[in-house]
Amino acid sequence: MDDTAESVESVDFSDVEIDDEFWSPRIETNREVTLEYQYDQLEESGTLENFRRTRDGEEGGFQGMWFQDSDAYKWIEGASYVLAKHDDEELRSKVDEVIELVAGAQGEDGYLNTYFSLVEPDNRWSNLHMMHELYCAGHLIEAAVAHHRATGDDSLLDVATAFADHIDEVFGDEVEGVPGHEEIELALIRLYRVTDEERYLDRATYFVDLRGTDDDRLAWELTHPEDIGGSEYDDGALIPDGSDGAAKSVFLDDDGEYDGRYAQAHEPLRDQTTVEGHSVRAMYLFAAAADLALETGDDSLVEPLERLWENMTERRMYITGGIGPEHAHEGFTEDYDLRNDGYAETCAAVGSVFWNRRMFELTGEARYPDLVERTLYNGFLAGVSADGTKFFYENPLESDGDHHRKGWFTCACCPPNAARLLASLGDYLYARDDDGVYVNQYVGSTVTTSVGGAEVTLSQESSLPWEGAVELTVDASDEVAVRLRVPEWADGVDVRVNGDAVDEDAADEGSGYVELRREWDGDAVTLSLDQSVEAMVAHPNVGSDAGRVALTRGPLVYCAEDADNDRPVHQYTVDADADFGTDRADLTDAVGTDVVTLGGPADVPSLDGWEGELYRPVAETDTEETTLTAVPYFAWDNREPGAMRVWFHADR
Amino acid sequence: MDDTAESVESVDFSDVEIDDEFWSPRIETNREVTLEYQYDQLEESGTLENFRRTRDGEEGGFQGMWFQDSDAYKWIEGASYVLAKHDDEELRSKVDEVIELVAGAQGEDGYLNTYFSLVEPDNRWSNLHMMHELYCAGHLIEAAVAHHRATGDDSLLDVATAFADHIDEVFGDEVEGVPGHEEIELALIRLYRVTDEERYLDRATYFVDLRGTDDDRLAWELTHPEDIGGSEYDDGALIPDGSDGAAKSVFLDDDGEYDGRYAQAHEPLRDQTTVEGHSVRAMYLFAAAADLALETGDDSLVEPLERLWENMTERRMYITGGIGPEHAHEGFTEDYDLRNDGYAETCAAVGSVFWNRRMFELTGEARYPDLVERTLYNGFLAGVSADGTKFFYENPLESDGDHHRKGWFTCACCPPNAARLLASLGDYLYARDDDGVYVNQYVGSTVTTSVGGAEVTLSQESSLPWEGAVELTVDASDEVAVRLRVPEWADGVDVRVNGDAVDEDAADEGSGYVELRREWDGDAVTLSLDQSVEAMVAHPNVGSDAGRVALTRGPLVYCAEDADNDRPVHQYTVDADADFGTDRADLTDAVGTDVVTLGGPADVPSLDGWEGELYRPVAETDTEETTLTAVPYFAWDNREPGAMRVWFHADR
Repeated sequence: MDDTAESVESVDFSDVEIDDEFWSPRIETNREVTLEYQYDQLEESGTLENFRRTRDGEEGGFQGMWFQDSDAYKWIEGASYVLAKHDDEELRSKVDEVIELVAGAQGEDGYLNTYFSLVEPDNRWSNLHMMHELYCAGHLIEAAVAHHRATGDDSLLDVATAFADHIDEVFGDEVEGVPGHEEIELALIRLYRVTDEERYLDRATYFVDLRGTDDDRLAWELTHPEDIGGSEYDDGALIPDGSDGAAKSVFLDDDGEYDGRYAQAHEPLRDQTTVEGHSVRAMYLFAAAADLALETGDDSLVEPLERLWENMTERRMYITGGIGPEHAHEGFTEDYDLRNDGYAETCAAVGSVFWNRRMFELTGEARYPDLVERTLYNGFLAGVSADGTKFFYENPLESDGDHHRKGWFTCACCPPNAARLLASLGDYLYARDDDGVYVNQYVGSTVTTSVGGAEVTLSQESSLPWEGAVELTVDASDEVAVRLRVPEWADGVDVRVNGDAVDEDAADEGSGYVELRREWDGDAVTLSLDQSVEAMVAHPNVGSDAGRVALTRGPLVYCAEDADNDRPVHQYTVDADADFGTDRADLTDAVGTDVVTLGGPADVPSLDGWEGELYRPVAETDTEETTLTAVPYFAWDNREPGAMRVWFHADR
Repeated sequence: MDDTAESVESVDFSDVEIDDEFWSPRIETNREVTLEYQYDQLEESGTLENFRRTRDGEEGGFQGMWFQDSDAYKWIEGASYVLAKHDDEELRSKVDEVIELVAGAQGEDGYLNTYFSLVEPDNRWSNLHMMHELYCAGHLIEAAVAHHRATGDDSLLDVATAFADHIDEVFGDEVEGVPGHEEIELALIRLYRVTDEERYLDRATYFVDLRGTDDDRLAWELTHPEDIGGSEYDDGALIPDGSDGAAKSVFLDDDGEYDGRYAQAHEPLRDQTTVEGHSVRAMYLFAAAADLALETGDDSLVEPLERLWENMTERRMYITGGIGPEHAHEGFTEDYDLRNDGYAETCAAVGSVFWNRRMFELTGEARYPDLVERTLYNGFLAGVSADGTKFFYENPLESDGDHHRKGWFTCACCPPNAARLLASLGDYLYARDDDGVYVNQYVGSTVTTSVGGAEVTLSQESSLPWEGAVELTVDASDEVAVRLRVPEWADGVDVRVNGDAVDEDAADEGSGYVELRREWDGDAVTLSLDQSVEAMVAHPNVGSDAGRVALTRGPLVYCAEDADNDRPVHQYTVDADADFGTDRADLTDAVGTDVVTLGGPADVPSLDGWEGELYRPVAETDTEETTLTAVPYFAWDNREPGAMRVWFHADR
């Protein structure tokens, strides 16, 4: 980490206007369809009614999951990002309505949680491990910060600061402990940035530092069920009604002893070497820790975070950027366990994007926006249907045909998480430091920002992900560097300024960026990124992918679906050395766009001679040559239901 | 089905003396170690104490699973088979002791079930679906028949007939219904054969015919929890404490409606076309139905059984003969679901052997002893450790290294089931009809039997499974046919009588048997069966085995274990066309014998260049040539714990 890198900051989405052939329709759908649809779901699921009942001083009658307030908060956050760009009267009025409900439900002391107010008013802050009051508080704060920044309005920010102040009073004093589900930490840092109140930063530091120590309360709670709640709890599981009973086991190791891994509390963060437990929790904690390092300059957090990132990306991450293979605890298991029917929660992909944005700000290293790109186009984007009203909770890399997106979930964390990320996509495109601008994502857009006193305007046209051509026009009031990320997947890159080739090797110097430092006056920069089809193999230790290849092109991971192939997709064996060709398929009806498909030679078993047989000597069987057609992974399950595979058997 | 076939009957094990290099040590271990060990387990698990408490008129204090009486019965049955051959004083005294306990626990009305007597005396015959009174009764009857035939003693037979008479009085009158777990049906037929009491055969017919009709009570029970038991029941699940809560879901379809498949009660047996539900139950039902067809000449059962057998063996059976991939309901799922980490319960393999013996008796077709052989050497035999004291409940075809045999189970059905099959192995070797003897298994032995009035003595020496040489010496008092099964796996067979080659094609005529019809006077018959190594592929619809091969040689399915291979077993890609060689390995310490191992060329991924990488283009990676070593599947997990695979990635 050098001093230059320390001053890197992402350009806020408010300074970025996206106009991109690929992403803009999705952002529009998110704005016009998804947020509207999700508002209706907030009503139908009882989420808004919980606030009304609390506001009206009712008792009982809580609906849904005990952390369901957070669905409303995430929706407000996403809607606020939209309002920052579009003065959408109808959306604004809905946001105001929900904020009024939220404000009305707040107690005089600032406390705000409809589950506890309606169901267990005497048990506040007693079961930190599972009851998610701080998690909900964190999402309230994030929503408030987003709403304040979008509108200048303090209505929700006042609610959030009152609750944050209440939390700050209670914790470290009345109550010593950390939440089972991280979120409050990164939220308090965001609140600090808006309010400049140091106590929020300090309280975030407290939560991050306490976790994994003997005083974090989590182990204590599990051994003191009588102290952490009333009749609403299942004393055996320490989990309230409505929770999946399987959850208990994830707290305990094989000997029945408390094992803090589920909540990243097995040891202090600075000592951790492997990503463990519930993957969304892990991402939110690591994002907060990166923010803390950014805000406090505490270098002791950086190396552990880099170590954890390397463990994740080198041993525990799907090729889609998805993470967390295990269903039972929605999380990480062990190195190289990347079962293709795994979990890979959409929220975890969202959290990974959050964390990687911050790791980039800490280090200025291209590997983090590389992973943001991989995750956005694959592990994240698959989570939302083309029409914006159906969502994956789980994102397996293989399906027998029975996994489909749904309109909502009992635990509906993923849909509004996807909405808030899509609505703030502009946050991930550009960054700046003292002397330059980083172009981190090739998404058509215009950005206006200042670099060391110079005003910089950069407009970008991008043909990604389908083709590798990018054109930028740059104006700057002084000499600045423009740093163009060379994606990890690009076999070659051709960079030109006003038509003159740049020696990108010299300009890159291993940083992952081609740096162009000069004066800019409407100069044209073109990038041409080589998007060849690659047959990828996984590390030899990945048992699930042994003998298989996955097809990628540019930032996209591909998959085969029954819809495009005559045979069940598991029957195809691809020639790992063959050249796969590209084609265009108009999937507008299903996927909202036409897409580049891949096609290449493959063998399938002959169906002859199998009458009455289940096993035969290979020597007596034949194969037939055929073609495998693959579509982008994000686009799967938008047509007729069928089987899907990312990893194909391969001869080599 | 022709008339000749109808008269086929297996030669009873009492007329067979086994002296076989492969099987005799296992049978000895079963006699000397396993039965002794299991007797101790009956005591330790509380099984015997349940009988004592019932005998003494106690209330409550029942230990273990509610069907645990059956463990004792299966143990008596296995021990009785031993006593039929060996006058083992100590074993006899233990058997007598257990029989005395059982007899003491019987009620005056003949009823006998320690769970109901101790815990729910008022709820007899109320929950047929789950409470297994008829299942336990069936095992009591089987034990009694075995004990009576072994010893001539009526002590247990009297208990069994009294209970059977009680059942016969209650059912069809007071209670109309069938058991959730079949077993009583085949047991009553065995009792009929010993007693000649037609009412037992009729009652078996009643149970078989009623199942799957509207009157079988099973659906009714699920909708009338208030009528089927007291406080011991979980009203939600209709399953008593101690049961796996997951069991409930296996009764219901996706819409929450009762689905009789779990207990083969979705439709009458004669209408069934696919093997469904709990696989042990299915095997016991089908075995009983085959017995009924044998005893009653009811041809209407034969075609359905053949259809079900074909569905099982052509679509729902592991290459080991194991069946039932799903853990949740211990059973069948759908065609071609043969997941390699599947369930394949040892008891289901035992049940399959039972059923196939009877199908052979019905039809005289070689495909049934073919499957008996496959199952005995693979899916069944893996279930017992070499030392006879550890058992697999599940027999997956792939393990990451965490699946190991155990000494006993909460639900300990498998260990005594394995013991009774090993102790009665002689039942499966020979059969006879009006004019000949069938040699169904190549196991060293001597059999004396009569064929159409002629006395036949046949002695066999066999080098199976390691080599394919078999020698028989035959004496007969008249001309008889000797029919030698040509195993499905034998690529070629050379048959000689007194050194003169027999044209086995002419003698076979597609029946699966080489028939030698002549007069016999100490004549020597030699078989030489070609035991080449075969790389087998599974049907193209089997997704789990796509792109993979399994290695077999003779009757044995092979697997690779970490113990013999430098690399994790998943990393090997075998050349499907290569010749695998054989070798001998002395695994006496671990497996109790030396074994023929297989070795052949394979590729493994080079480990170079993976530092810091999880995914790389295949073109940038290398493979290395190496050797894969495979051992017989039955022998796995007898050495240091490690991963195991049956199906290997293959290039072809």
